Order: sequence, then structure tokens, then C-alpha cells
Amino acid sequence: MSLLVVGSVAIDNVETPSERRDDLLGGSATHFSYSASFFTPVRLVGVVGDDFPKAHTDLLEGAGVDTEGLQRRAGGKTFTWTGRYLPNMNDRETLDVQLNVFGDFDPVVPESFKDARLVFLANGVPAVQAKVLAQAPHRKLVVADTMDLWITTHRADLDALMHNLDGLFLNDSEAKLLTGCENLVSAGEAVLDMGPRFVIVKKGEHGSMYFGRDAQGNPESYVLPAYPTREVIDPTGAGDSFAGGMMGYLSQCEHLTAKDLKTAMAYGTVVASFNVEGFGLERMTRLTREVIDERLDAYRRMLSI
Amino acid sequence: MSLLVVGSVAIDNVETPSERRDDLLGGSATHFSYSASFFTPVRLVGVVGDDFPKAHTDLLEGAGVDTEGLQRRAGGKTFTWTGRYLPNMNDRETLDVQLNVFGDFDPVVPESFKDARLVFLANGVPAVQAKVLAQAPHRKLVVADTMDLWITTHRADLDALMHNLDGLFLNDSEAKLLTGCENLVSAGEAVLDMGPRFVIVKKGEHGSMYFGRDAQGNPESYVLPAYPTREVIDPTGAGDSFAGGMMGYLSQCEHLTAKDLKTAMAYGTVVASFNVEGFGLERMTRLTREVIDERLDAYRRMLSI
Repeated sequence: MSLLVVGSVAIDNVETPSERRDDLLGGSATHFSYSASFFTPVRLVGVVGDDFPKAHTDLLEGAGVDTEGLQRRAGGKTFTWTGRYLPNMNDRETLDVQLNVFGDFDPVVPESFKDARLVFLANGVPAVQAKVLAQAPHRKLVVADTMDLWITTHRADLDALMHNLDGLFLNDSEAKLLTGCENLVSAGEAVLDMGPRFVIVKKGEHGSMYFGRDAQGNPESYVLPAYPTREVIDPTGAGDSFAGGMMGYLSQCEHLTAKDLKTAMAYGTVVASFNVEGFGLERMTRLTREVIDERLDAYRRMLSI
Repeated sequence: MSLLVVGSVAIDNVETPSERRDDLLGGSATHFSYSASFFTPVRLVGVVGDDFPKAHTDLLEGAGVDTEGLQRRAGGKTFTWTGRYLPNMNDRETLDVQLNVFGDFDPVVPESFKDARLVFLANGVPAVQAKVLAQAPHRKLVVADTMDLWITTHRADLDALMHNLDGLFLNDSEAKLLTGCENLVSAGEAVLDMGPRFVIVKKGEHGSMYFGRDAQGNPESYVLPAYPTREVIDPTGAGDSFAGGMMGYLSQCEHLTAKDLKTAMAYGTVVASFNVEGFGLERMTRLTREVIDERLDAYRRMLSI
């Protein structure tokens, strides 16, 4: 099934305890697209300035990402994020954000993308995310990511959006913020009551949790650990990469069963574990589906008791 | 195989955001013993004062814990710990510690315990833990728990002890403190180089990691998530309960293979998930091996991809 992603394309400057790298291709829709491209062609809707290097567009196109929906704003500058990771490589601080052309991003889905069945709304203003829905009339599965800023400042729009979602991604502290529940199981179930059919709570280096309902409508949940790696070079984009691997795999499934969703989460986990092994997309550009499948097998064996 | 545990038996006063409970039966050797007792008879070596209620001893005895090695110090008071859990129920602060008779605990293993094959040295002064080894000449597997205090103040003794251990339990921040490695995989492998044949890194609500070596001597590791529960009433003793479930299961295994160790970790995970569902041992006293096995099956299904 065809996969559409709408979200940020950015230039990242990343500082870690051992190194600083500037001008990396980043952005939530970028990490999502590249990760999903190992499973399926991807249609990308975003916006960049005329400073955006052609090499970046070529890299995405070369991976099977259709950039017809990537608006190029003349005279504008691309969204730029600069951040620093703390020694634990899990916590980070944002040093600078220049939204630039992403500040008034108005997503326009090209005609040729409108038959998309799977839609991922990468992190962004909820009202802007909502604008995509009417432009994807054949959507079968819509999944969105969100963040603390929108929970705090755009709650009504987010509440409205959640009723139109099949799935919602958010991290553990955001799930607690959104629901007021300190226990993650209770928080995940409370988010489920806000509209989405399923909720994925991301726990960074500690993995992720799934919340959904069984055939009888009772809540069910499970937790999957992250794939342990000692090569944590740059965690930027891990969450979007996780979503990309997950949605990429789902695009190959016909019925989107509970089993498909779990396998998709495992693929997302594994793809994200590669994403953190290099700055920006560096590790990803050396990755193959075969190597992903090898690590998925290792992950499966690791969890087989 | 017979199982011996040496460590603290205490009276706990526990405060959570919703409730305070005093005079709970606590202590690391207590939580370990009770958890292990679902799998095997347990021999307990510890010390209490003459204020220690007979009901507590009866509770342990009733569960199949042999208390012949529990010294009762006339005129002394039992070790008391008072702590408060923060709203996240994972972090806690110690409000008061009265070591009392545990302050100069000198473990004496009764003659009838000396044929023990499996030995667990619950958290304590490393030099005191080491005194047990000579008193367990038939030991086949010795596993110890430790903490940040001993890493900081008794490092030489801990280093010496580690060379005589088969396994070491410690939590994630302690593994980082002991090794200076921020990455947990690197930290776990570095602890392995300090002597133990295997290392278990406890991550609280995020599960645990195993580090060992394969047949060729190469390091191997895996991570298992905690069993998700919404009923986190009192996390006190979760780590010792985890160790108790693990060692209890291992006592039933003949060869202690890598597969046995992983199944044991899964049992430890499941037993610990029950332990946190009540104050002190409350949930545990209503537990049966059958219910443990049901949850183990659910855990196995959860991790089956």
C-alpha cells in the first residue's frame, strides 16, 4: 500500500560529548522517509528553502523517496535545528531553532500522491497535521506523532486530531503530560480513550510500548525493549526512524492485524537502532534490507524465552 | 540444588504518594527468600533484634524458608529502613536508616546449610559478603548484589569479591559508576572484565540486561523488559525479588546453561512484577507458582514476534 509522510525536512547541527557535526540532513519526515524506504516507495510532503542542497534531494530520491511534494520556497531558508546531547546520549538540549520556511508550512499533497493508503503525520502543529486528512481521501491508516509543546499550547486542536487518527506516537513523558497519569500503563490506556485505535509510547533507549484493544474491545498492551547497541553516535531522528520502519513494514501488509503491528514495531525498533549508529543518515545510507532482517532475527532470538 | 541467601532482614516503613505503611517485613534477604520459595526451599542467614515479631519468622517458615541461620540478638533492635517514593514510583528517598544489629552483622552459616550449591550474597559490605564463601565449600554458583555506597567507599574489597563471583547484580547507574562507561552495553561488558562470569544490570521499570560470554569467550548480551503492570503499589524489594525468582528457578536446573539463565531472568522479571503490586510482601503472600507460570506465559507471548 502506498505510503505518504508529511512533516519537517531540516538541516541539523549536532553536538555530542565526542564530536560536533554541522549541516546534516535532518527533520522528522526525512528520518521517517529514509527508514521506510527500505520497505516501500515513500511520498514526501514538506518544505525547504532555496539553500537546500541538491545532494540532499538526490539522496532521498536515490532511496526511492518521491520528493514531488517537497516545496522549494524561493528566497526562504530551510528549517535548522542545533542541539547537544548530554553524556548519557539520551537527554539533549536544543541550542538553537530556526523554523524559517517551516514556520508557516502549508502542506499541499500533489495529485499523484492522493491515492495514498497509509499516512504518517510527522510531528508538527496539530491544525497543520489535520489539513492533510482532507487531501488523502483514500487513507486507510493515519498515524501521527506529537510533542509536549502541542500538548501544552494547542491542546484543543490535538484533541480534535486524535479523534481522526488510527495511531498516535508520543514519548513517555508526553504520555504522562497528556493524561496526568504517572504510571505508563495507565497513561497509555488513557490516551487510547482520547480517540486513537492504537498508541505507541516511545521510551528512547528503553524501547516502546503498544496500547490497543482486543477483539472484545478490552485494552491490551505490551512492551518491547530497544535493540541494545554500544554504537550510540547520534540519537537524532530515532523516534521518526522507528515510525518509518514500522509504517514501511505495515505498507507491505494486507490486513494490518495485531500480529502485523507487533512485527512492524519490531522492525521499527531495529531500524531505529541503526539510525543512532551514525550522525544524521550516515549509518542509514550504508544499510540494506538484508542487514535489517539479520538484526530482526537477532532481536527475535534475544526475546525468545 | 540447595539455595542459600545471606543478607538483611529488616523492618520497613514505606511512604508512597497515596499511602504510608509502617512495620512491614522487609530487607533484601527477606524479599529474595520469599520470591525464591516459590521454586525451592531456601536457607536464610541474617540477623534480627529481639524486637523482631514472631509472626514475621512464622511467615517465612510457612513459605519454606529455613530460618535456622537467622541470628536473634538479645537486647538488640532489628535493622529499620524508612523511605518515600516520588510520584513516578521509580525514584525514592531514604528518610531514615537504623542499621542496629545489622551494623556489625557477622554471617555464620549453620552446619546444616553448608552443603548449599547456590549462594546469593544480598547487598551488604563486600568484606562481609566475602566471609560467606569459605562457609559454603560446596558452592557451585555464587551470585552477589551490590550498591553505589560500596563502589564508592569499599572498592578494593568489591574488586576482590568480584573475582570470586559467578554472577553480579547491580543497577544501571551503579554499572556506570563502577566502570565510568555511560553506554550500558559498554558498561556491562566492562563489569564482565572485572571477574564475574555473568552480570545482570537492573533497570527498574525498564527491565534488565544480561551480559555473559558465549562458548568462544566473546561477550554476549540481551535485554528483557519489565512485565508492565498498572498496579505499582510499593517497588521496595523488586530487585531482590527479581534475584530470588531467578536463583529459585536456577536451583531447579541441572546444568545452568545460557538458556536456563535466560528463562531464570524471565521468572525473576515476573516474580518482581508481583512483588511491586503490594506493600512489603502483601501481594507475595497471596501468590502461587501456578499464577507465576500464567504470567510467565503471558510474558513469553508478549515477547514473541
